[in-house]
Amino acid sequence: MNALDDVINSLSRLPGVGKKSAARIAHHLLKSDQSVCERLAHDITVLHERIRPCRICGSYTEEELCPVCQNPGRDRTLLCVVEQPQDVQTIEAVHEYAGLFHVLGGVIAPLDGIGPDQLRLSELIARIQEGEIKEVILATNPTVEGDTTALYVQRILRNLNVTVTRLASGLPVGGDLEYADRLTLARSFRGRSSF
Amino acid sequence: MNALDDVINSLSRLPGVGKKSAARIAHHLLKSDQSVCERLAHDITVLHERIRPCRICGSYTEEELCPVCQNPGRDRTLLCVVEQPQDVQTIEAVHEYAGLFHVLGGVIAPLDGIGPDQLRLSELIARIQEGEIKEVILATNPTVEGDTTALYVQRILRNLNVTVTRLASGLPVGGDLEYADRLTLARSFRGRSSF
Repeated sequence: MNALDDVINSLSRLPGVGKKSAARIAHHLLKSDQSVCERLAHDITVLHERIRPCRICGSYTEEELCPVCQNPGRDRTLLCVVEQPQDVQTIEAVHEYAGLFHVLGGVIAPLDGIGPDQLRLSELIARIQEGEIKEVILATNPTVEGDTTALYVQRILRNLNVTVTRLASGLPVGGDLEYADRLTLARSFRGRSSF
Repeated sequence: MNALDDVINSLSRLPGVGKKSAARIAHHLLKSDQSVCERLAHDITVLHERIRPCRICGSYTEEELCPVCQNPGRDRTLLCVVEQPQDVQTIEAVHEYAGLFHVLGGVIAPLDGIGPDQLRLSELIARIQEGEIKEVILATNPTVEGDTTALYVQRILRNLNVTVTRLASGLPVGGDLEYADRLTLARSFRGRSSF
């Protein structure tokens, strides 16, 4: 059955969807109404047409500027630097941060052939040189690549008049010392704060 | 961003796909080529057009008969009764069974308003009355509904000249006694075989 195999193959190429989940989804779609399939197919098709990078921060938007850059209520002295557009949404969902964002569009990963030139660094420097930003929060992932990138960004911002900070890394809330990996535990010691 | 939210909502309605996986898939699609999205959307759209139930067994096919019913090499004295079309594919993937299938199209579930009338039981009886089938293997799931349905089917086939069997239920291979649930362990005692 080619049509079924085709959709299972296409679905199983999606992240986090294995062969079994893909088959389960395919059978669910077959049992659902055709309108459900058409809606899903339509949503997938128009994604690229509608979504584009924000002219300022590089996060996703359907207009020229993203909702954060457009919002006059955001703190324009704070700039949070993230790897990917989805990181903006992750941070926004927490409702903890009220400043602006800057999406790098990746991390420095020499093994994948990604160097600083491929990241939105000149745009970052240009934004900081406008003078309104007081603090740059480096929110790249706490991975080897994310840490390397944070270090690199911190260095190129050294001569600009901004405070550069990095998100705290340590034990996750609700976590258990016993289950923490060595690196996280070591980092939670180094980053300890007075009680 | 409506287009992104739309696709995340549509995806998160699929079985096994939560809000976070849906967001991950949506961002993966945005980073992929438009051709990937179009291919996936196309595969989803044509599913209902191309796939239909096999005229004999009720499993999925793109032709009038499914590959199993068409295959002259299958053992036509053996009939395996399953709940859903996907069960046929699960069993076929094991390459252990060489007989035919019959898809009930569900299980008896009074709470969901599904009674014997909604299952393909008259078709099952008609197939058995043709006389070629010697054994009917009840392969409904080892759940309350699956067991009830198996019992019901076994009763209505009592006066027909066929052996009715049920798939063995017990400890999964590679499993551990310690982690087996009570019902499974109890059933593995009842179904024990001589060594």
